[in-house]
Amino acid sequence: MDGRTGPVHEALATLALTDHHCHGVLTDTPGDGDFESLLTEGEAWPGSGISPFDAPAGVAVRRHCAPLLDLPRHVGPEEYLRRRGELGAAEVNRRFLTAARTDVFCVDTGFAPYPLTAPAALAAAAGAGGAGAVAYEVVRLESVAEAVVAGGVEPDGYAEAFRSAAEAAVRRPGVVAVKSVAAYRTGFDLDPARPTAAEVTAAARRFTADGGRLADPVLVRHLLWTAVDLGLPLQLHTGFGDNDIRLHRVDPTLLTDWLHLVAGTIPVLLHCWPYQRQAGYLAAVFEQVYLDVGLTLHHVGPVRARAVLEEALELTPPRKLLYSSDAYGVAEFYWLGALAFRRGLAELLQARVDADELGLPDALRFARWAGADNARRVYRFSDSH
Amino acid sequence: MDGRTGPVHEALATLALTDHHCHGVLTDTPGDGDFESLLTEGEAWPGSGISPFDAPAGVAVRRHCAPLLDLPRHVGPEEYLRRRGELGAAEVNRRFLTAARTDVFCVDTGFAPYPLTAPAALAAAAGAGGAGAVAYEVVRLESVAEAVVAGGVEPDGYAEAFRSAAEAAVRRPGVVAVKSVAAYRTGFDLDPARPTAAEVTAAARRFTADGGRLADPVLVRHLLWTAVDLGLPLQLHTGFGDNDIRLHRVDPTLLTDWLHLVAGTIPVLLHCWPYQRQAGYLAAVFEQVYLDVGLTLHHVGPVRARAVLEEALELTPPRKLLYSSDAYGVAEFYWLGALAFRRGLAELLQARVDADELGLPDALRFARWAGADNARRVYRFSDSH
Amino acid sequence: MDGRTGPVHEALATLALTDHHCHGVLTDTPGDGDFESLLTEGEAWPGSGISPFDAPAGVAVRRHCAPLLDLPRHVGPEEYLRRRGELGAAEVNRRFLTAARTDVFCVDTGFAPYPLTAPAALAAAAGAGGAGAVAYEVVRLESVAEAVVAGGVEPDGYAEAFRSAAEAAVRRPGVVAVKSVAAYRTGFDLDPARPTAAEVTAAARRFTADGGRLADPVLVRHLLWTAVDLGLPLQLHTGFGDNDIRLHRVDPTLLTDWLHLVAGTIPVLLHCWPYQRQAGYLAAVFEQVYLDVGLTLHHVGPVRARAVLEEALELTPPRKLLYSSDAYGVAEFYWLGALAFRRGLAELLQARVDADELGLPDALRFARWAGADNARRVYRFSDSH
Repeated sequence: MDGRTGPVHEALATLALTDHHCHGVLTDTPGDGDFESLLTEGEAWPGSGISPFDAPAGVAVRRHCAPLLDLPRHVGPEEYLRRRGELGAAEVNRRFLTAARTDVFCVDTGFAPYPLTAPAALAAAAGAGGAGAVAYEVVRLESVAEAVVAGGVEPDGYAEAFRSAAEAAVRRPGVVAVKSVAAYRTGFDLDPARPTAAEVTAAARRFTADGGRLADPVLVRHLLWTAVDLGLPLQLHTGFGDNDIRLHRVDPTLLTDWLHLVAGTIPVLLHCWPYQRQAGYLAAVFEQVYLDVGLTLHHVGPVRARAVLEEALELTPPRKLLYSSDAYGVAEFYWLGALAFRRGLAELLQARVDADELGLPDALRFARWAGADNARRVYRFSDSH
Repeated sequence: MDGRTGPVHEALATLALTDHHCHGVLTDTPGDGDFESLLTEGEAWPGSGISPFDAPAGVAVRRHCAPLLDLPRHVGPEEYLRRRGELGAAEVNRRFLTAARTDVFCVDTGFAPYPLTAPAALAAAAGAGGAGAVAYEVVRLESVAEAVVAGGVEPDGYAEAFRSAAEAAVRRPGVVAVKSVAAYRTGFDLDPARPTAAEVTAAARRFTADGGRLADPVLVRHLLWTAVDLGLPLQLHTGFGDNDIRLHRVDPTLLTDWLHLVAGTIPVLLHCWPYQRQAGYLAAVFEQVYLDVGLTLHHVGPVRARAVLEEALELTPPRKLLYSSDAYGVAEFYWLGALAFRRGLAELLQARVDADELGLPDALRFARWAGADNARRVYRFSDSH
Repeated sequence: MDGRTGPVHEALATLALTDHHCHGVLTDTPGDGDFESLLTEGEAWPGSGISPFDAPAGVAVRRHCAPLLDLPRHVGPEEYLRRRGELGAAEVNRRFLTAARTDVFCVDTGFAPYPLTAPAALAAAAGAGGAGAVAYEVVRLESVAEAVVAGGVEPDGYAEAFRSAAEAAVRRPGVVAVKSVAAYRTGFDLDPARPTAAEVTAAARRFTADGGRLADPVLVRHLLWTAVDLGLPLQLHTGFGDNDIRLHRVDPTLLTDWLHLVAGTIPVLLHCWPYQRQAGYLAAVFEQVYLDVGLTLHHVGPVRARAVLEEALELTPPRKLLYSSDAYGVAEFYWLGALAFRRGLAELLQARVDADELGLPDALRFARWAGADNARRVYRFSDSH
């Protein structure tokens, strides 16, 4: 009755996943410090005695990724990094991406402190096993706004310039969604109303003069309302991330007033931890709200994937759960995210089937929905070509 | 050691429950959309592909309620609704209510968008199996205040008129408690102090002019303090509900300052999820605070009842936990709530007994307390006749 | 695969723990009401029918402490208290303290409503079995500030007098850390910036005139910044405690802005419940942040220790977890805390080893780190003699 084997596992094992939110992978072998930094939402902290290879994500890499590099399970960091370098980035990427058995990727292309593969190259590496894969693009709106300002604009032209740039960005082929990292900039304790043109102009005065990060509360609100006007699904970072987050300000229920105002928009709540229950509540009571646990899965690792999903699904209708790896840079996280999702969701569902609490056809349907079909409904991929 | 069978289960199976917070059941067979709406804190969303029958509560209905309608487990929605209509409301209500083995109900009569049974009719249906059942009444204070205003009152007469009406309402035979849905109206981030008469009059000016919902923060505070004066236990909705809740404002620990001021009152925290740990903390440190997980049990379903109770009981003294179904309209939730409570609590306690972490006599005592005795102490039913 | 036995358990059973945060034990047998009060973060509430012996901590005492007093498991309160009195405080203290197999204690000496052992006497009782134990001291800064004011100081001399007194306090032999109970005084929703001298003087005006508790937000901030200047690790109460806490204000992520400003300081987050996930996030993203679940372990009891640790460790690097009993007054909690920690952590790690999710050498290393080595790194005991 622990749900560790059975037909739901078998079904998810062969189901090609849709990874509705991820980033590219590194095109070159990273330096050791870079790789360790990418393993954690903290940093590498060299000389501290605190190794990302000991944290849950690092333990999972040594356990589940080492064998794909022909290494023994639980291998040490030095050996892991040595072998990774020996194989080279292209081969490493190919191994993890094909192992992930993901045939659709939605790639956030707006955050690139490291040189990453473009969406097409990511799909090519993932489809190298012969099954084929396709990548769509997600436009990060903060990057669009910051590029507009970097290009030079007057305060009273900001709103229109940003809107035009965003419309142009989403008209490009293969774009299926927009994304906001408002969570990082202000959090969600915002006035939900659409700001007036005068408010936007006033707020744009400093932003257009100084440039840098879009972090003014009025401009963040304006960005969210611009997203509404664009009409595409809106991916929203919620919950944890690096230490630039103020975790108490990114509980997604802080968005409730705004959600009441934007019934025509599809917000997709990303990551959510430790607010996965709160996100599930929103998905249960707002028709248009969807969620994933994204980033959480590889950070807590396969050992806690089921526990987090159990909480996320206490209220969430099974039509509302999506899969994402949120993998950034290191190809390992494509494989780990997919593994943790498949195993965590399969254990949850299979245990319910084994206890006769859920019918097997329902379980199989819910697994297919979460692994692929829900994303297809939300993003309407066939319309985007 | 998983606690799935044993004497605690047997004891709870035969224990007649006291359901200290519920509503009536529908007197007629609902339309299909209505039934689906009542299954969820969201809505039916017809044509969306999102069915309440797929959410955890709907899965539990198809699993645990279908057999009581002579249907196979995990039956589909159409068949379920067809059979439900065929049997008719009276027979459906009788089956689920008698199966719930609940002999005392405290009925919140103040929320009736649907035609529901009065308390006596609810008790009659539940006692139809021969065992007998009795129903008491809980007075929802917002409804009293809104009726007072609807009947016409001057701003400076509001406080006295509300107090008189509330006193009259609780003097009626069978009334054992009052209830507030302040959670829905303002949340709990309120000034804890009793408002002055002048403040109440000022705040009542708009309410008495416009009517509608009592939602002014001063009037919500005044209502809570009126509840204190009435001297009966005060049921407080906390935690999740429909999308009219702002979940981040209904963490019951926001009430801490107020709890320090009202030591003579017995607040009973309802539902609590996802703040069941926070509610348990309050029950542990304030003598007068009690709690249930109410509504949570049928929404998360029997598969998660134990997990939620485990968290609720991390700190809660076993004298402080009550049982409620919070069933509204659909008779299924009386049965599901009772089933989830009996099973969840029994598994929790039995597993501890099996691991020799808890003595069996203690476990049996805690089960009886939570299932019935604690409510008898709180509401002093024998005084209410 | 449930992890209940195996080499991690064996290793933790023989590992001498470092209890990095605790208080003294009662030097005399307490009155029955006093003992019951000390069992709970609530109170004894005599005559209420609510017994601390029924709460999780009380159940654990009757289960796990009774045998050390030669009583049967699950014994009743009267028999327990009778036997405890019969043995006398010294013998009771010796039995529980030696059973805890703890060889290093860091003792917060700043909170003494009851007559407690000094650190040396605590260590002597713990080392009575022959193994030897050593006690270090933690200086509670609020007590230092309040003593300065009680001794008489002008408002414009407060900052300097407090700083001098704190510096003198931490220069004493054996002092390894400072502690703040800011959580109790204001919570963490504070301006993170260091207050100016003028602000401190203005705020000190009332405090120096009236004395009593340091609870002014400016003075609490000043205290935290004084702690930064002292250069020792700073223990911070976070999460639950008695009803003087406002739980919604002690989520440690409210400290994020301040943590960005104090990179040279080592904050050690104590207790954390129900924010153990939030605390783990901070430990994962700030190099200098450490945590324990302290007080939580004996209050939720061994039955929930693993569950709480599982959440705490979802993100926490294993270099960041410390052990503390936070035992106050009753010697039982030294034993219970150690038991719950050893069992909870061992089950968590062993289950992962058994499932081949974690290598055994890693598991043994993480256990030693959390049980003793991490505290040695943080507090640099050898420097303190």
